[in-house]
Amino acid sequence: MSTSVENSVLAAARAAKDAQPALARLHRGAKDRVLGAMAEALVARAEEIVSANARDLAAADESGIAPGLRDRLALDPERVGAIAQQLRDAAALPDPIGEVIRGSVLDNGLELREVRVPMGVIGMVYEARPNVTVDAAGLALKAGSAVVLRGGSAALHSNTALIAVLRDVLAEQGLPRDLVVGIDEHGRDGVDVLMRSRGLVDVLIPRGGAGLIRRVVENSLVPVIETGTGKTHVLVDASADLDQAVDIVANAKLQRIGVCNALETLLVHRDIAAEALPRLTAPLVEAGVRLHADEQAAALLEGTGAEVVPATAEDWDTEYLALELAVAVVEDLDTALVHIREHSTGHTESILTRDLRSQQRFLAEVDSAVVMANASTRFSDGGEFGFGAEIGISTQKLHARGPMGLREITASKWLVVGQGHVRP
Amino acid sequence: MSTSVENSVLAAARAAKDAQPALARLHRGAKDRVLGAMAEALVARAEEIVSANARDLAAADESGIAPGLRDRLALDPERVGAIAQQLRDAAALPDPIGEVIRGSVLDNGLELREVRVPMGVIGMVYEARPNVTVDAAGLALKAGSAVVLRGGSAALHSNTALIAVLRDVLAEQGLPRDLVVGIDEHGRDGVDVLMRSRGLVDVLIPRGGAGLIRRVVENSLVPVIETGTGKTHVLVDASADLDQAVDIVANAKLQRIGVCNALETLLVHRDIAAEALPRLTAPLVEAGVRLHADEQAAALLEGTGAEVVPATAEDWDTEYLALELAVAVVEDLDTALVHIREHSTGHTESILTRDLRSQQRFLAEVDSAVVMANASTRFSDGGEFGFGAEIGISTQKLHARGPMGLREITASKWLVVGQGHVRP
Repeated sequence: MSTSVENSVLAAARAAKDAQPALARLHRGAKDRVLGAMAEALVARAEEIVSANARDLAAADESGIAPGLRDRLALDPERVGAIAQQLRDAAALPDPIGEVIRGSVLDNGLELREVRVPMGVIGMVYEARPNVTVDAAGLALKAGSAVVLRGGSAALHSNTALIAVLRDVLAEQGLPRDLVVGIDEHGRDGVDVLMRSRGLVDVLIPRGGAGLIRRVVENSLVPVIETGTGKTHVLVDASADLDQAVDIVANAKLQRIGVCNALETLLVHRDIAAEALPRLTAPLVEAGVRLHADEQAAALLEGTGAEVVPATAEDWDTEYLALELAVAVVEDLDTALVHIREHSTGHTESILTRDLRSQQRFLAEVDSAVVMANASTRFSDGGEFGFGAEIGISTQKLHARGPMGLREITASKWLVVGQGHVRP
Repeated sequence: MSTSVENSVLAAARAAKDAQPALARLHRGAKDRVLGAMAEALVARAEEIVSANARDLAAADESGIAPGLRDRLALDPERVGAIAQQLRDAAALPDPIGEVIRGSVLDNGLELREVRVPMGVIGMVYEARPNVTVDAAGLALKAGSAVVLRGGSAALHSNTALIAVLRDVLAEQGLPRDLVVGIDEHGRDGVDVLMRSRGLVDVLIPRGGAGLIRRVVENSLVPVIETGTGKTHVLVDASADLDQAVDIVANAKLQRIGVCNALETLLVHRDIAAEALPRLTAPLVEAGVRLHADEQAAALLEGTGAEVVPATAEDWDTEYLALELAVAVVEDLDTALVHIREHSTGHTESILTRDLRSQQRFLAEVDSAVVMANASTRFSDGGEFGFGAEIGISTQKLHARGPMGLREITASKWLVVGQGHVRP
């Protein structure tokens, strides 16, 4: 890698770090005014943004981009309006900074408080989705942090235009432009430098496909919050309400296919499998879902008209994000728990049951970020949890687990106030 | 590195991971009984432990160990008794597991709870201090986690003996021995494998010198909690109560020299420096502290009998852990804040002042784990904070910041209970 990329990215990270204290001193009203002004400026300069986006789209078309990716990349004035609205939504959220998390007066009279403070500098690495650029910047600013953004080369011109608008508003509001810094022009090498910028960047949050996330997790010296992959299980217990179960399974699999909280493996208790499997799969089959079934499930699905292929060992660990579903019949709750322990990515699992003991055991023993009973896995979401915003869904145990809102991108510190206290 | 070390350490980590669910199911009473039985067994088998320790001491003497390190390594029946007492103290602490951190019923009737759960497998890498072996194991078990211990080759026989006692008790109590696993026999290579055991070990906590911590932070694929180095500052403001300040500075520097919350840099406001510096340093000089002073401070200390050497650029970033202190005169509060921002390791800083605005600004603007007013930095400690135990002091912002007790080595998960809920 060239020294100049290294120098540029480290300089950008340092500029963000040096800018951040100016933001940390602002109270909610001032921060919300900045976000509001950014929303206005985006709408006012929509033409400029859309024309930058047109350059990205032209390049993408030339290189033969997939239709789904092109759709996520494309901007028009209406979409710019929606992006601006994200900033107004962030402004409307309560300010997490300053919250007293706990506090007490010690025996010796020392006053102790743990308070919520900004993280400092947040690095975001994501894919070619221009809306994430603005969303991430807005949430970071609301939480008092500067942000270094790296958003996928395919969106270079769009991101550059969006970041320019945000930086101009910061300057107009008397704040350092470097509270929002983009490093897209340095490509993948820029990410490598960012991952080594420990001491400048406080946390790195990768958002995107499994490959991107693995690359960051395995190479970063900066602490990382791992987000994302969801090999999500629903267990239909012997005592499940079958009508409910049919609706929940259909909702979990079909309501939105390509997302991390969509259902990927269906486990059905042996005692109910013969009756349940044909009913559970009927709406899926109708929607075109192909079933990767184990032997027992395949036998029970024969003659239902379902497209069934034999499940391979790989199927139990595959996040399809597609019209595919792994299906297995399980002996009992224990077998199901072992299966989940071995194959879950720790994102979200749900049991459908009417048995109190089964529900208790499932909630207690499944070691995932979100563990549910009698609900669709699609509720595993920051918006649904009432966080008002979602940075991503953490599948690691450190710092944040499950849907992450504003609070999850903050840190804390301890304040200790004495009156001349010395330690005996 | 040999494949056999790799296989052995990964097998040990996997064994700990497989053992952990048995512990996760225990409630407080059962866990405390195990800790009590371990304490008893340590006392009963003290002779065996002390004789293993004698082998380590003989080897250490042969290689010419420093007296301080030898003292930390040495065990006698009384010290084994003190180690056993650590386990009884851990048993007496409240159980962090199961705490409902937050919860609500959503608009749609979904019941949402975030609950505290065990971390899973905790890796501890530390230096040749056998008491840490038992302390770390006891606190991990109390917090529901299995533990993989790597404690410095110089304590190999002592640690092996201690771990054997703990594992025997686990088996007697009907629990898997592998809840406590030692990997000392694999030396430094073992640490390298442990650092790559992502997916088996949930968090790695290095405790010890700056070199050890840096090595783990820079090489670990497993998430790390960085502990330790404290380049700790006290600022004596223009309005400080000088009598109090003299006591606090002496306490912060002298009460215990070699610890991370001991004072390392003294900043004195220009307006009070001429009067304050001689008085503040008198007790330090008497105790044999050498002062690394900037030009202004050196001039004011002339003729006081203090041993003064000119501060070099390096002094502002050195954690002495010795009878040495960096001293500077600062222009005003802003200059002090800039100095701290540039040179602090983010551990603990304290302002001594009678001015409300100065105290407010210092508490708000210093970005360290513990920020104090009118108190000795020596209070930055899990025991003093009332945590009952201390795993270490985190100087990073992710997950835990400042003194870490039981709560800081746990994770959380979300429980979502519905009645057939699907997402519209």
